[in-house]
Amino acid sequence: MEKMCADALPLTMNSSEKQEIVCIFGTGDFGKSLGFKMLQCGYSVAFGSRNPQMSSLLPRGAEVLSYSDAASKSDIIILAMHREHYECLTELVDSLNGKILVDVSNNRKINQYPESNAEYLAQLVPGAHVVKAFNTISAWALQSGTLDASRQVFVCGNDSKAKHRVMDIARTIGLTPLDQGSLVAANEIENYPLQLFPMWRLPFCLASVLCVFFFVYCAIREVIYPYVNGKTDATFRLAISIPNRVFPITALILLALVYLPGVLAAILQLYRGTKYRRFPNWLDRWMLCRKQLGLVALGFAFLHVVYTLVIPIRYYVRWRLRNGTITQALANKDSPFSTSTAWLNDSYLALGILGFFLFLLLGITSLPSVSNMVNWREFRFVQSKLGYLTLVLCTAHTLVYGGKRFLSPSILRWSLPSAYVLALIVPCTVLVMKFILIMPCIDKTLTRIRQGWERNSQHSKSALNGKSDI
Amino acid sequence: MEKMCADALPLTMNSSEKQEIVCIFGTGDFGKSLGFKMLQCGYSVAFGSRNPQMSSLLPRGAEVLSYSDAASKSDIIILAMHREHYECLTELVDSLNGKILVDVSNNRKINQYPESNAEYLAQLVPGAHVVKAFNTISAWALQSGTLDASRQVFVCGNDSKAKHRVMDIARTIGLTPLDQGSLVAANEIENYPLQLFPMWRLPFCLASVLCVFFFVYCAIREVIYPYVNGKTDATFRLAISIPNRVFPITALILLALVYLPGVLAAILQLYRGTKYRRFPNWLDRWMLCRKQLGLVALGFAFLHVVYTLVIPIRYYVRWRLRNGTITQALANKDSPFSTSTAWLNDSYLALGILGFFLFLLLGITSLPSVSNMVNWREFRFVQSKLGYLTLVLCTAHTLVYGGKRFLSPSILRWSLPSAYVLALIVPCTVLVMKFILIMPCIDKTLTRIRQGWERNSQHSKSALNGKSDI
Amino acid sequence: MEKMCADALPLTMNSSEKQEIVCIFGTGDFGKSLGFKMLQCGYSVAFGSRNPQMSSLLPRGAEVLSYSDAASKSDIIILAMHREHYECLTELVDSLNGKILVDVSNNRKINQYPESNAEYLAQLVPGAHVVKAFNTISAWALQSGTLDASRQVFVCGNDSKAKHRVMDIARTIGLTPLDQGSLVAANEIENYPLQLFPMWRLPFCLASVLCVFFFVYCAIREVIYPYVNGKTDATFRLAISIPNRVFPITALILLALVYLPGVLAAILQLYRGTKYRRFPNWLDRWMLCRKQLGLVALGFAFLHVVYTLVIPIRYYVRWRLRNGTITQALANKDSPFSTSTAWLNDSYLALGILGFFLFLLLGITSLPSVSNMVNWREFRFVQSKLGYLTLVLCTAHTLVYGGKRFLSPSILRWSLPSAYVLALIVPCTVLVMKFILIMPCIDKTLTRIRQGWERNSQHSKSALNGKSDI
Repeated sequence: MEKMCADALPLTMNSSEKQEIVCIFGTGDFGKSLGFKMLQCGYSVAFGSRNPQMSSLLPRGAEVLSYSDAASKSDIIILAMHREHYECLTELVDSLNGKILVDVSNNRKINQYPESNAEYLAQLVPGAHVVKAFNTISAWALQSGTLDASRQVFVCGNDSKAKHRVMDIARTIGLTPLDQGSLVAANEIENYPLQLFPMWRLPFCLASVLCVFFFVYCAIREVIYPYVNGKTDATFRLAISIPNRVFPITALILLALVYLPGVLAAILQLYRGTKYRRFPNWLDRWMLCRKQLGLVALGFAFLHVVYTLVIPIRYYVRWRLRNGTITQALANKDSPFSTSTAWLNDSYLALGILGFFLFLLLGITSLPSVSNMVNWREFRFVQSKLGYLTLVLCTAHTLVYGGKRFLSPSILRWSLPSAYVLALIVPCTVLVMKFILIMPCIDKTLTRIRQGWERNSQHSKSALNGKSDI
Repeated sequence: MEKMCADALPLTMNSSEKQEIVCIFGTGDFGKSLGFKMLQCGYSVAFGSRNPQMSSLLPRGAEVLSYSDAASKSDIIILAMHREHYECLTELVDSLNGKILVDVSNNRKINQYPESNAEYLAQLVPGAHVVKAFNTISAWALQSGTLDASRQVFVCGNDSKAKHRVMDIARTIGLTPLDQGSLVAANEIENYPLQLFPMWRLPFCLASVLCVFFFVYCAIREVIYPYVNGKTDATFRLAISIPNRVFPITALILLALVYLPGVLAAILQLYRGTKYRRFPNWLDRWMLCRKQLGLVALGFAFLHVVYTLVIPIRYYVRWRLRNGTITQALANKDSPFSTSTAWLNDSYLALGILGFFLFLLLGITSLPSVSNMVNWREFRFVQSKLGYLTLVLCTAHTLVYGGKRFLSPSILRWSLPSAYVLALIVPCTVLVMKFILIMPCIDKTLTRIRQGWERNSQHSKSALNGKSDI
Repeated sequence: MEKMCADALPLTMNSSEKQEIVCIFGTGDFGKSLGFKMLQCGYSVAFGSRNPQMSSLLPRGAEVLSYSDAASKSDIIILAMHREHYECLTELVDSLNGKILVDVSNNRKINQYPESNAEYLAQLVPGAHVVKAFNTISAWALQSGTLDASRQVFVCGNDSKAKHRVMDIARTIGLTPLDQGSLVAANEIENYPLQLFPMWRLPFCLASVLCVFFFVYCAIREVIYPYVNGKTDATFRLAISIPNRVFPITALILLALVYLPGVLAAILQLYRGTKYRRFPNWLDRWMLCRKQLGLVALGFAFLHVVYTLVIPIRYYVRWRLRNGTITQALANKDSPFSTSTAWLNDSYLALGILGFFLFLLLGITSLPSVSNMVNWREFRFVQSKLGYLTLVLCTAHTLVYGGKRFLSPSILRWSLPSAYVLALIVPCTVLVMKFILIMPCIDKTLTRIRQGWERNSQHSKSALNGKSDI
């Protein structure tokens, strides 16, 4: 339900009800915007300022007072000021006693200070109930009402009542408060708005490196080599033909890299004989971005599908087909139908389509609202069983297609092998290792280790074991 | 987790536990359905009715009493009656004192009464704790158990305990309660079920007008003109050829219209020199439906993609290609390969594919569950950076394709220019204006204005400014 | 916001704050993993064990005590043991009085015991506040930090304060607690992790049966029959041609089966004259899995679209087209353009594309996060109006395409009719029945019944009736 109290003027409020007064310290941009919104939604707003006379351009209907006067008006005080100015609150410690202080500040860098701004505030004004909130909301969005982005407000604080008061205010001005527990969470809440896709960095870097490498490799093989050898201008291949070689290869390798860390983790556990030791850091980080790796791979797979489907409307392809037909017609030669070619061609198309379909399913399942609907068992079924099936289908698709190309006569075969040969190394390795791992004897040992069945722990084979596999 | 207490008979309840009694006033359809569901989920239900003897067809296990008798049975009373009948509760004011009254009513029109039904009820029975809930749930869905639609129940009320009691009941009968704050929210909660895609109206109207205009324009140019001039029957073009011209044009113009209001707002702010004045209403409304505009544009872009991909399986296209080949074969004429045509053709295909891919990404990011996962900075990155890149790619795609057509010799070129020429006006204007706005000197002024740096406000250049850009 | 307290060492905690101590009974795998995570997130952990000396491999920083010693350390005790061992808690009843007992256990089968484990525990230790939580979380995921799956923790319990303490712990260790109400919900929470797509079984079985039947039927008709009759090897058709016949047929029949139960329910209600009687069980179950049926149908429709779009890049199709062209060129025969064929061909393509587009829209609307955004009225509009439009478009698409085939001369026409003829039976039946049901007189009667307008209930025609249709 999208709330739009922008249209609800304060006058429509039930006049018999006494308006709640909220105090805002600071008349900067965020303070003004928040005050503007709160006035629209029926609150009374008292601004606290160092120089009440100097403050201008405040929303109509708000009054501007000194800090101490403003504080006495309300038991909720929103601090729209920077951490650097919190010092000046020490003078007001008495008048702030028992009040709810809402910290809305952000920092400029992740983990800029040893403790979060909210915890620092709680130390400065020990008698107040500090609540962290609203820091993820943009002043501009608040004021213009264009909250296209997330309306979520993360709220944390040690006093439950204070927290609920602040959550009620957030709801009234059209936001969605989310209780994040005690004030310890403030650090994370403050870091949150400074992040820029932290989990996507590694997958993107990897994908870029793979793309550039294979693009250059294919360009050498299909554009530069023919030009040097036969003075043929094949530069137009850079637009579609070569990308449509680079994209599926990148997608396949990235997909294999989604499953590689799981296999490596299993091998490490088998080797160590225990699961009670942490994985090396690089493996941990790799495992944490598997979902993102998979989604980047899906993006490339999607591009490959569309690039493939436009093949018949390309001028080059039409020209080649027409010329082939004409040559054949003029030579009056019959080209017999080859059932084996039809089989080969149809089967790699079918394998590719089914692989892409399962890949899409995996992608849809990783949407947050869908993955919240499935339980652990279902999630494992989809991500592990279907995931490996996707990898097998996509590898087979590449194998049949690339194999066909590889076996066709070409001088390049040995000196510059088709990129598909390189592309198949990682997925085949993963599949072979996985195949070894699911062999009964190895699988049994691994299950024992993963269920914590070590020397003296006899409890494990029991009702809890449904939850203890990878 | 989908709850299905329909299968859990009351008998399976722990018999040692005393069943909670809930009272329902009103034996209409919604009252019956709710009572039926509550009985299934283990509650005892007492119906209150004006004519207890007359009420029939009530769910088995429920008892029917007079209003006052029923009210004395429980401290939670659900009022399954219309606002028009609330008057009769004034007689019961004493027996309702301190009870929780749950208002489930809806109106027939948005903002039918000056105050919400729940607030009206709170005025009539001031001693009771009024909670608004369940009004978004369908009686039919409740009873048949087919809650395919949203299970969300918006709950609001001034008494926190009363609200939590009602939320617990909602959870027990398999619904998802969402706390919406105090009773002021009741008005919106009552309007909610009466809405029918309010934010989608403007985009749909706009899209329809554009579609119809360009369809007629193209029909005149490609069907009526050839018929009048050369008696050629090209009506079959109405099914695929012309839609595949109308859809991409509509998509491109709508996409440009997503970014136009942002540009206009920036110009307005530059002109006014302040951001502390509200935009005109039409601009506000336009900005609020940008997401919907973009999604409608994506729909048309998707249709364009599929319409384009079926081109080679169309009878008309196959016939034309075959006839061209035969004519050429019979004339024994060679058609040389043109690298520049191959480049032109491949590049507009590639631009289109990449533009569509980014467009899809934007669409996925606007799914509620995905946009809730990203913070303001990430959202801006995706919607603004990627959004403009999409617009640039799609405009370039149209330019290359349309330009090729425009330059080909045709008598129509000047009298009836290709629809693509018209289509490019809006996106090119938006891109030029945006380009001017991001020029350093103008961008700096705009940033100053948007961060509220005016005359005397010196605080702004600080930790809060990460949140104050558009 | 993804929390990763794995990196936050306890040392970063504000040392002035006293660490909360949590007690875990049981040193099995889940107990260890949970303790490990809690230590990482700043809690003190005391393990309770039957043999404190024997327990090894516990996370560093935790202490191991006897049950009673550990219980005295904290007022929150997490029972990481099986229901079978709950018996031993009876000796500790006194020391557990007033404590919060967190039941994390799962069973091996759905509804294994007459009452839920948590309710059983509450009976054994009546003085304690039992809270059910954490049972949906995997030990392995907890420990390795790879919570790709759902982070949702369903929490229920009769004591509100105890519940909120446990929810705070869940938040602190990076999970998302969801309040599920009182302890009655424990049964469902315990069954939840044992489910494996319960609602998807029926749709999958149905789809498999339809697929196999039509695959065999088409194989007989297009592979075995030509082989027997003319010794033609058409086996390569098994890879793409025949699946591309089976998939759309299955999709169409499944889509029709989504709307069939609604039609049957209406007929049943008309026949009975009341809606206050439950539907037969099979109809209920069918209605509950309509969404899943529709999504499986969408999957097949998607496959059909991709299989169709790859047609022009198939070797077989290219060979046939080339050979046709050559034959024609050699015969010097002109093939005139047939406008009616162009119309027929373009119209079934256009119908199919539009039908698929609407089908996709329906699918997107059924994503949980999207369907939560729409109200009942909007949901009905999309699922019912758009749904039937989709069915009409898809049926028309099949009719035009199949009709064309059916009318083409073939010996098989009567002995083995095209599979499309069989495919059209169900959707046509549904559409005809629906058409009869929406005829004014019948629709009026049905509306009366569905709004509960029976004999003596006069309230219904009123504000509540917006909510009482199907």
